Parts: sequence; structure tokens; C-alpha cells
Amino acid sequence: MANLNLLSATDAYRAIIAGETSSEELVQDCLDRISEVDDTVHAWANIDAEYVLEQAKASDKHRRSGAPIGPLQGIPVGIKDIFDTFDFPTQYGSPLHQDRKTTEDATVVAMLRQAGAVILGKTVTAEFACMSPGPTTNPHDAARTPGGSSSGSAAAVAAAMVPLALGTQTNGSIIRPAAYCGVVGYKPSFGLVSRHRVLKVSSNLDHVGVFARTIEDAALVAGSIIGFDARDLDTSIAPKPNLVASVSEEPPMPPRFAYIKGPAWDMCDSTTHSAFGELFDAMGDRVEEVDLGPVYDEVFEWHRIIMEADMAKNMADDYQRGAEQMSPMLLEMIERGRKVHAVDYNLALDRIDMFAKAFAPMFEEFDAVITPAATGEAPVGLDSTGNPACSTLWTFAGMPTMTLPLLEGEAGMPLGVQLVSARGDDARLFRNASWLTKYLEEL
Amino acid sequence: MANLNLLSATDAYRAIIAGETSSEELVQDCLDRISEVDDTVHAWANIDAEYVLEQAKASDKHRRSGAPIGPLQGIPVGIKDIFDTFDFPTQYGSPLHQDRKTTEDATVVAMLRQAGAVILGKTVTAEFACMSPGPTTNPHDAARTPGGSSSGSAAAVAAAMVPLALGTQTNGSIIRPAAYCGVVGYKPSFGLVSRHRVLKVSSNLDHVGVFARTIEDAALVAGSIIGFDARDLDTSIAPKPNLVASVSEEPPMPPRFAYIKGPAWDMCDSTTHSAFGELFDAMGDRVEEVDLGPVYDEVFEWHRIIMEADMAKNMADDYQRGAEQMSPMLLEMIERGRKVHAVDYNLALDRIDMFAKAFAPMFEEFDAVITPAATGEAPVGLDSTGNPACSTLWTFAGMPTMTLPLLEGEAGMPLGVQLVSARGDDARLFRNASWLTKYLEEL
Repeated sequence: MANLNLLSATDAYRAIIAGETSSEELVQDCLDRISEVDDTVHAWANIDAEYVLEQAKASDKHRRSGAPIGPLQGIPVGIKDIFDTFDFPTQYGSPLHQDRKTTEDATVVAMLRQAGAVILGKTVTAEFACMSPGPTTNPHDAARTPGGSSSGSAAAVAAAMVPLALGTQTNGSIIRPAAYCGVVGYKPSFGLVSRHRVLKVSSNLDHVGVFARTIEDAALVAGSIIGFDARDLDTSIAPKPNLVASVSEEPPMPPRFAYIKGPAWDMCDSTTHSAFGELFDAMGDRVEEVDLGPVYDEVFEWHRIIMEADMAKNMADDYQRGAEQMSPMLLEMIERGRKVHAVDYNLALDRIDMFAKAFAPMFEEFDAVITPAATGEAPVGLDSTGNPACSTLWTFAGMPTMTLPLLEGEAGMPLGVQLVSARGDDARLFRNASWLTKYLEEL
Repeated sequence: MANLNLLSATDAYRAIIAGETSSEELVQDCLDRISEVDDTVHAWANIDAEYVLEQAKASDKHRRSGAPIGPLQGIPVGIKDIFDTFDFPTQYGSPLHQDRKTTEDATVVAMLRQAGAVILGKTVTAEFACMSPGPTTNPHDAARTPGGSSSGSAAAVAAAMVPLALGTQTNGSIIRPAAYCGVVGYKPSFGLVSRHRVLKVSSNLDHVGVFARTIEDAALVAGSIIGFDARDLDTSIAPKPNLVASVSEEPPMPPRFAYIKGPAWDMCDSTTHSAFGELFDAMGDRVEEVDLGPVYDEVFEWHRIIMEADMAKNMADDYQRGAEQMSPMLLEMIERGRKVHAVDYNLALDRIDMFAKAFAPMFEEFDAVITPAATGEAPVGLDSTGNPACSTLWTFAGMPTMTLPLLEGEAGMPLGVQLVSARGDDARLFRNASWLTKYLEEL
């Protein structure tokens, strides 16, 4: 088989367990693709071809031994460079941590290994998973940003260097780069995935999520990392959703979508306005516009208060020992965060549950929210990762969200369609995402 | 039977179920005692003799009907006037809430009713359960404070107006008044008892606890209010301790106590120093001094940061509409709290678990901490409720603590001996308290 790197993880897995190919061949094709394009894309922060091929061979050997195999057996996964890995350095996209090595995996990295995955390498992150970009470019146009902060994960999956990657989102760091790069991005409900041994930006807002090229692949990798972790007490003990099963489930009746322009609508550009206008028209009675009203406009302020105050605390040591090695953008956030008052912080925290619960009645009437994933196509230039505003409300409220690469802007760049479900309703999100994709194909 | 108000709750319950007396007779004796002494003690904020006698009669009728009865059937309990009760007003010790009435019970009040208790009335609290005293005097000497903020609950139990009462502690508001009034005070581990519909001072530090005249009584009433409550998500789903059983349990081997002077020792007066010195000498090899070192001295600052920042948020509405009706002491706390930075607040929150866990190795060697319950005898004067410093560390760390009226100061006023166990080890606290009481009687 040729160009195995183009296969979805689901198809590659089937081919591997059918004995039609091997993890080694798949990983080799991914490495070849990286050699071919990564001088331009710069998606990878740390990679070691020889070591990774050994891992792939070990996986093949394990599989051939007849021992139990995992749902990701032999499948390569890219890991944003803020997740600890015992075998690769974890540098947080900052010169302050260029020598950082750990002896333990993040909980979710260990879970991926247990599921049989081969960790292909670490992907480029914006500085401290915030706003200041790394070297990554957009695979569709190297003059444009891939988005961030999970820049390398989005670009690596989009450029077919790896079928799956992990990222994180504190504001818009999964959904935005996935939209800009034209892949599927999924940020689970708050509390579904452990953040143990992942760089802490704001434990009230940090989410681990995934990148893939198909909804099914996103379900496959997310399904392997969901679960309670006593080392992250925000994780839930509720039964796990079966995301893979949800992808092929037929909804009991055709779903209805709430079209929400949302508090970021005025920041969206004209190509986004017109593309979503057309989508709305095309969907007919499957969609109805819901106006949130002005109360949610305050979410940017509430979100900022929590995120920056938490950053000021979590990055205090780095700030003390190396403020001069931080970007002006990061310094500004930390310094604003140091001035946040506890009273305002606690009022903002109260809003998280308040906002999430306020959507409950809407989800009795509608199956999912449909809304732009980003304010436009990936902007030209590499000095910014773009505007996260289309994600802020859903991240703040801890609601599960997914972007699907279903539209195109006037520059020919991908535009993401963002679906959002009620907090905890991740299975329904996957079922509706799958339904919508088929529905729009048939239109 | 005469003077039923002098009986312990445990004995009164036995007499009631044996048919030797009735709830009505017991409540009548409590009401008579209140008529006799409450003009001086001022323990009660709201009481309604006729209504309460009706409740007692209804309890007797219920018991005689042969229907299932509770462990507090017919026993009167006093409730600090910051717990919501559907039948009495709840005035928070503040003119701002003099007209406050609710239609629902606090979770623990409802639990007491389900256990068969008769709510005798509401007891005087310091303003907003903080520092500014109500009219209550110390039953042992009306020129002295009863302590606070659970002033009325401590005084009412001490003066035999009621065998049991509920209080709350955010710093020293159960242990200090219990010590000053010479009764048993018990503050459970953080998370053991629901605070739903109890005035919120600081949900990170607020604890519900009890007053009684015997350890067994404290176990009886506390056992009726411990339990998970979905409306207070800080409550634990861990199995409940059986406190009543623990009281009569013999320790597997004679316990050893860690004598800790603690960060408040320098604030304790000479009568406390000498009384505890003698106690230490008398206990021989049952006790060993443990020096905590200076790190815990910072607890006063960490505690203040959290409590005042939380007060500033929780009392914001009251502050806005009626600052002029707040005491200068309360205003000062709220105004300091408004200036606390979120970074310092979150650093202080981290210390809670850190401190609680730091004691774990000590509790492998020792069965309980023994330490003063207050800095001295109840001070003369009613303009202050005394110094809570002997409680700050244990409240901050959420550790269970109990004061026992085992010593006397040079003015003849009670001095409390405070025992502390590891967080979650409340059963062991009761077993050791019971053992210590017998041991000292036999010395």
C-alpha cells in the first residue's frame, strides 16, 4: 500500500489488523511526508525518526504475538508540546523550558500508549499555549497562520503528516486552528479528559481535545483518553460516552440546529457572514436562528478575568525567573492577571455554571448549536494566531464543541462549521456532527 | 421527673422512649429554664413557647402511635440564627435581615427534624457569623463574653436551656464559645456536613458543627446531620462515620497525643500556659510535644485572605444596600477583602490541602493533637467575642476538632482542651476524646 499517511486512523487500523500493512509502514510514510513538507510547515517541535520506527516495530511485534491489542494499535499520534512525555522533551513553546525533560507521561499520553498508539513526536505550540506563535505555517498557504495555540497538531493532521493529534483549548486553541487548517477539531465537555501533567494555564478553563481528518477518527482518539483521573479532580466519574458508536448512530428523528451568531458575530468577516447565511438558507427547517441577547457579550471579560488571574498564578515562577524571555503579549496577560481581584474572579467563576445551565432549555428544543468556528479564514501573516472569539463562550461554559471543515472562504481557505452540545452531551455532538456532514453532502 | 433540662440528650431520649417522660415535659422544662435565666444570658434570638410545645406534643403523639421514631425523637435543639428554618425567621444577627423569612429549611435542619428533633428556636449569632457580638452573656459570669460567633448556641447549652445546638465555624466560632462556656464543641472535617441554606461567609472555610454537654450527645446530634448533599458539592460521598459507636469504642491500644502549642501559643495567656503545662506533665508518656515550626505561623494570613475575599463577594449585596448598618469591624473585613488579588487568593487556597496533608505522617505516630481551645478564659466585657487564633489552623486545614471542658483557669472559668484528628478521621476523634476524658478522671 502506498501513501498510508493519507489514510484515516480508522482505515489504517483496519488495514493493520487485517495484516495488509504494518505500523512500521504507516509510520514510515508519515515520516516521509514530514521530510517532504515540514521544512515549510514546521509542525513538529520534537521528533526522532529512528526511535519512532522502533516503537512502530515493537507495536507490530506485539500485535503479531497474538497478545491483546488496543483500539489505536500501531497508529501514530502527534502530541502538543505541553503534554509531558517520558521519552520526548516538553518545552511549552518557550525558551524558558528548552531543557525541560520529565520522566513521566501525562495521564492521557499514557492512555494513548495503553490503547496501542505510537507517539510520533511533539507538535509546535504557541508560547505557553497562549497567543505568541511558534514557526508553524498553514499547510493550505504558508503565508497564513495555522491558528493556535495547538498550531503544530492542527497543521500536522491537515498536511497528512499524522492522522491524529492531541491539543488543548483554554479559549480557542483547538477549534480555531482546526478550522483554519481544514480538519476536524473536538474539544470535549469540561471534566471529561484529564489534564494531569499538562501545562496548566487555567485549570478552570483548560480542556484537552483532539484533531483528526474525520469525525470517526476524532471519536476513536477521544474515546481513548476520556476518563476519571484522581490526579485531576475536575474529571468526572460519570460513565464514559461511547463516541465511536455515536458516529454511526442514526438520530431518532432528524435533528434541528439552533443557528447562533453568538457574541463574536460582529468580529466575523464578510466571507464568514455570507457563507453562514448561505448555509442557514440551505438547511431550511433543519435550522432556526436563536438570539442569545446581550448578556453573553460579557463572556469575553469573565473569561479574561479567570484566565489571566490563573496564568498570573500558574506562571509566577517563570515570570520571576525569566520575564525577559517572555513575549510582550504573554507579559501583558500575566501582568493584567496579577491585578485581578479575588471578588471579580469568584464572580466570574460563578458565571461558568450559570452560563452552562442557561442553555439547558434550548437543548430540549434543539439538538445542537451551529455557529462559526472562527471569525474568518486563516489570516495572512505569521505574527498572530488569529482571533479565538468564536470559541470563548463555549470554552468558558465547558460545553463540548466540534469544528467540521465543511465550508470555504473567498480566498479558497477552509471555514469551519462549529457544532456545540450541552455540557456532558458529547455523544449527541458526535451523532449530530455525523448526521450534518451526510446531510450537507446530499443537499 | 424534675429538671429534665439538666439531662443529657442521650439520657432524655432513653427516658422518653421508656415512657418515663415525654418530649412535652422536657421542652417545658427547657422553656422554664429559659424564662428563668435568659433575661441575663440572652442566648435566644427567636423562640415561640406555644409553637414549640405543639411540636413536642406532636412528637409525643407520633411516638405513641408506634410509627418509626428517630434517634433524636422529641429532643429539643437550638439552631444558630444563620440556618434557614421554614418556621422561624433567620436574621443573621444583622439589622439588614431583621425581616428575613424563608419557606425552606437548611438541609441540616430538615435532617434534624427527620431524626425526630424539636427545633426549640434560633440562637443569637454575632453579626453575619463574624466578629461583632450580639447581646449574649457567658452563663458562668454575665460580665464575660460567651465567645462567638455561635454565642447563643454555646450559652444555651451551657446554661441547660437546651441539651443540643448547632453552630458554624469559619475560624473559631464553635470551639472558642464552647471553651468559654464550658461545653463540648465539635467541628467536623470539611465536607462532612452540608451548608446548604446556611449563611455563606466563605464556602472554602465554613463548617457546620455542634454543641452539647457530653461527648456522646455531640456524637448523637452530629451523626444526624452528616451526609452528602447535592446542593453543597463540597460534601463528601465517603461512607459516614459512626460517631455514637466510636464514643464507647475502646482504642486498640492506649492512644498517644501530640501536644502542639501551635501558632497561637504566644497569644495564649499565662493561665492557659500553666494549665496546659500541668496537663502535659500529668499525662506522662501518653503525650509528646511536637513542634510545628514557623511555617504554620503564616496560616493567619492565608486564612484572612480567603475569608475576607469570600466575604467581600458573598456580602456584596448587603454592603451595597446597607454598609451604614454594618459594624466597623465587618466593614473593615469586607473592604480589605475587596482588595485581595486573585493570585494571592489561589495561592492561599492551595495551602489548605497542603497543610492538611502535611499532618498525615504525624497521625501515623500519634492518635490526636492536644492543644488549647482558646487563648484563655472568656475575657471580661461584651464588646468582643475573644480571640479565635487557637482554631485558625485546624479550621483552615479542614481537620476535625473538638473542645472538652476539662480544665479551669485562675478566675474559675472553664478552659477547653482541644483535640484534633486528621481530616476525615472524625470517628477516631470521638474515640480519643472519650478515652481522654475517662483517663483524666482516673488520674
